Amino acid sequence: MNEYAIYHRPESEFAYALDARTLRIVLRVAENERLQAVELLYNNKYDFTKRRNTAAMKLCASDGVFAYYGVDVTLADLRFAYIFKINEQGKTYYYSESGLTESYDFALAYYDFFQFPFLNSSDAVKRIPWTESAVFYQIFIDRFCRGNFTKNDGYVTQKWEKIPTAKSYCGGDLQGITQKLGYLAETGINALYLTPVFTANSNHKYNISSYTVVDPQFGSNDDLCGLLEAAHARGMRVILDTVFNHCDCTHKYFADAIEKGRASEYYDWFLIEGDFPDIERGNYAHFADCKYMPKWNTNNAHVRQYLIGIAAAYLQTGFDGLRLDVADEVSHTMWRELREAVKTVKPDALILGEVWHENTHYLRGNEFDGVMNYRVQKTFIDYFACGKITAKEAANRLNRVLMQNFEQVNAMMLNFLDNHDTPRFLRFCGGEKERLLTALCALVLFPGMPCIFYGTELPLDGGGDPDCRRTFDWTFVSQDKAYFARYKQILALKKELCAQTGNTKIKAENGVLKIVRERTSERITAVFNMETARSFAGAGKMLYEQNYNGKTLGLNGVIVFKEKI
Amino acid sequence: MNEYAIYHRPESEFAYALDARTLRIVLRVAENERLQAVELLYNNKYDFTKRRNTAAMKLCASDGVFAYYGVDVTLADLRFAYIFKINEQGKTYYYSESGLTESYDFALAYYDFFQFPFLNSSDAVKRIPWTESAVFYQIFIDRFCRGNFTKNDGYVTQKWEKIPTAKSYCGGDLQGITQKLGYLAETGINALYLTPVFTANSNHKYNISSYTVVDPQFGSNDDLCGLLEAAHARGMRVILDTVFNHCDCTHKYFADAIEKGRASEYYDWFLIEGDFPDIERGNYAHFADCKYMPKWNTNNAHVRQYLIGIAAAYLQTGFDGLRLDVADEVSHTMWRELREAVKTVKPDALILGEVWHENTHYLRGNEFDGVMNYRVQKTFIDYFACGKITAKEAANRLNRVLMQNFEQVNAMMLNFLDNHDTPRFLRFCGGEKERLLTALCALVLFPGMPCIFYGTELPLDGGGDPDCRRTFDWTFVSQDKAYFARYKQILALKKELCAQTGNTKIKAENGVLKIVRERTSERITAVFNMETARSFAGAGKMLYEQNYNGKTLGLNGVIVFKEKI
Repeated sequence: MNEYAIYHRPESEFAYALDARTLRIVLRVAENERLQAVELLYNNKYDFTKRRNTAAMKLCASDGVFAYYGVDVTLADLRFAYIFKINEQGKTYYYSESGLTESYDFALAYYDFFQFPFLNSSDAVKRIPWTESAVFYQIFIDRFCRGNFTKNDGYVTQKWEKIPTAKSYCGGDLQGITQKLGYLAETGINALYLTPVFTANSNHKYNISSYTVVDPQFGSNDDLCGLLEAAHARGMRVILDTVFNHCDCTHKYFADAIEKGRASEYYDWFLIEGDFPDIERGNYAHFADCKYMPKWNTNNAHVRQYLIGIAAAYLQTGFDGLRLDVADEVSHTMWRELREAVKTVKPDALILGEVWHENTHYLRGNEFDGVMNYRVQKTFIDYFACGKITAKEAANRLNRVLMQNFEQVNAMMLNFLDNHDTPRFLRFCGGEKERLLTALCALVLFPGMPCIFYGTELPLDGGGDPDCRRTFDWTFVSQDKAYFARYKQILALKKELCAQTGNTKIKAENGVLKIVRERTSERITAVFNMETARSFAGAGKMLYEQNYNGKTLGLNGVIVFKEKI
Repeated sequence: MNEYAIYHRPESEFAYALDARTLRIVLRVAENERLQAVELLYNNKYDFTKRRNTAAMKLCASDGVFAYYGVDVTLADLRFAYIFKINEQGKTYYYSESGLTESYDFALAYYDFFQFPFLNSSDAVKRIPWTESAVFYQIFIDRFCRGNFTKNDGYVTQKWEKIPTAKSYCGGDLQGITQKLGYLAETGINALYLTPVFTANSNHKYNISSYTVVDPQFGSNDDLCGLLEAAHARGMRVILDTVFNHCDCTHKYFADAIEKGRASEYYDWFLIEGDFPDIERGNYAHFADCKYMPKWNTNNAHVRQYLIGIAAAYLQTGFDGLRLDVADEVSHTMWRELREAVKTVKPDALILGEVWHENTHYLRGNEFDGVMNYRVQKTFIDYFACGKITAKEAANRLNRVLMQNFEQVNAMMLNFLDNHDTPRFLRFCGGEKERLLTALCALVLFPGMPCIFYGTELPLDGGGDPDCRRTFDWTFVSQDKAYFARYKQILALKKELCAQTGNTKIKAENGVLKIVRERTSERITAVFNMETARSFAGAGKMLYEQNYNGKTLGLNGVIVFKEKI
């Protein structure tokens, strides 16, 4: 056996509680091992030296380098000890805290068994029920819809029909969103993710100067309440893009620090070098290279208290969750405290972090529920849009992503093809709408919450920021009706999946990518072909098809079917 | 290169803050790789695609399977992105979030570089200054010393000179400890770890019925304050063995649940199945198979509040820290909240958990400072006491332990040869005192806090519990004076090491085990020989020697020497 590859760590993605009585145990080995059996030997930790139960572990994923064997165990006793027993070509191995060995001394096992010492229900990561069926729609407010034509529009710099620049103001607002809720619900959307709405002198409003007053360009605080009420009346959830990493240099506390320097009560609320912050020099921590966005010092308990109070107020206002901007640059201390406060106000509030990279340390149950899933986006771009990788490589990468987090965390990831920070997916597709639909279908069927960037239903085109933030063309219904029908059909697939847990398999077979999702009595299979046509027979009830003639799955072809099992 | 072996994960033991501006970055590879260079390419995350700095990584440990390369980087910008560049026999590899590749596209690096997105000082794990020089002494109170001869001794079942059984009461008490502080200080002890002192109907007092009243067998609450004051007057710290996993079935809250069943306000404070807890049936979660010790339900916020209030009171009374009994079976939720409360009352209080197995998830800065280091004990038993493993295997195992946690956590681990739950180390040594001294020397020089079980200076013998809990023979000074002198000489070595950080190397060379600890200007080397005599030349100032004639290091031989570098 390959002892470099074998790996397990308790209380990690390799051993975690699915609920108050069930543990999932996963063992990683080299993908090319030829194993006859992988078994879990287990018992309560006080009896393990005397006797053990045995459970067979099954291959659940492979990623091109490693294979993962898993088993779910329902506990009679919540104090769980275990080791692994592996049969490789007739030879027996044991794997414990002492590593891979050819024999194992059970009498001394209390020194080196693996353990999940007690399954305490308060530690188990819980799914938020409403996220199971969520189909999100991200709205960049200045560009989605203008609803209030009575407001002062002196700030608008550009006609709706034109392609905006970084500094354009186009006039979209909260009333516009409220007016389009019926339209969105009809397309299959049941959750909104709004970019920031509070006072900021920019079209994007990520440089906040007041965390409590809605920017007049977008409307009033009453307009916000009206939007939240109207959405809730339709059973639609709304989460807010919340910017706690930094603020605008005109925020009153930073202004106070500029005025008084070290004498300011707020000097330590920022990370300033020298006696006074100086906007020209930027002698303080700030976002990216934007000196006008000073970074909050979330090492300071007063800052945390201030920002967390704001978060609590947002939930009290009616928001159903927060998308935390630049979450990875804020202290973990802040996020742990914020979670406590948020879940106290609204236990089913969703907390999503913007984390582009390694995310596991945010997702163990005491910081975020999920993150923006950039790794999935990258794989979708490379496979569906650019054709840069094979179906096998795509399956490998997606399995790697899925095996890094708990199943219930994977279910609360925000998956997307594009957003306000990336070029439009259609641009990566070279304008080929079929590829976009193929990826959209995978997005809806992949574990997690799909999030559609506004305008995908047209589809809107655009390169990187600011070109990805074009205005929504409300004359679109007169355009590509077939595309729009497919778009809605794909979003509706989410309903077929609702409340599905466990048993997702991602694999490549004969050059096609497959997503298979199983529950007790039925299985949904999605097959994606990004290469030349090949014969493929669906089975059971066909839920969606694209470039399929009943026998042959063409280039950019998709079939999704449901079978009884 | 072996792609099964290579591994890195940000914000883990592979990438962590040493202080507010310094990161330690570690890369794991197969031990048998033949690498010409391992380099860290890094920059602030917003400039990484444009240009990078390079730092050479050095081999810092190997464990028989894996080798670990490390480098400490002082950050100019706190937003850190990086990848690894490796030269293996003339071939170049890159290692990023995309895995091991032969080329790397820096233009798209923002998708797959590793990052430590912002070094927030509040997240960095801090060393507690007094732990740097701590030499602990664990006292099992009923067996250490009887100081108060005026108290009611009707409970004493056995003469001091006899070997106790599981149920013996021998009469040791708090006044006895207070009287021996001078003696302990003189031997080199500067910190005490007391087994439980509060009311419990047992000699060990792990089955607590009152968390606030000192057990009359041990004295009064005034005696406790007296002990704490006297210890502090000598600069000695005292930590308390604190039992929050369970209590005694006579505890008033469990008694209330027995009386009123589901109607009791305290029913949910325990994990009871059925309407009433029944001690005979044991229909509730309890410690091990001890039905008389019902387990607290630390999923319940009221229980956490109650126990955490007790912890805070202990620190206010004067204790300098807590050793948390059966810590691994209590919820993480409880420990996170307890840490907040404890550090608020006394920022330099030490929190140690009893965790025999995988411990990393307790030691990331938001639960414990350290744990009881059972893995080190097991290696010391196998190598120094039983001779079951080679020096190379001992070094491998110790390196594996050290590479699992942050350096500052390793420094706060409680290392021991034996304690109230294991046979005496001398018993594993078959009574050979020289082996015990050899191990004791390694214990003092190994990173972490050495903890001596009372009576080791005699040395006391004994098998498993209760035989390891024999009474202390105060006539010992008339016995093995040479042994006692060596014991004190070894404890004094800790002073040579004080405040040493970084650069610990554990290795096996020519059949001997070496512990090398370096700081800026000097190096301490300890050499242990548990096999046949071999020639060995020390250098610099000799700090300790055993079975060494200046040229040859005999069986059970040790030399410790200090050099300028």
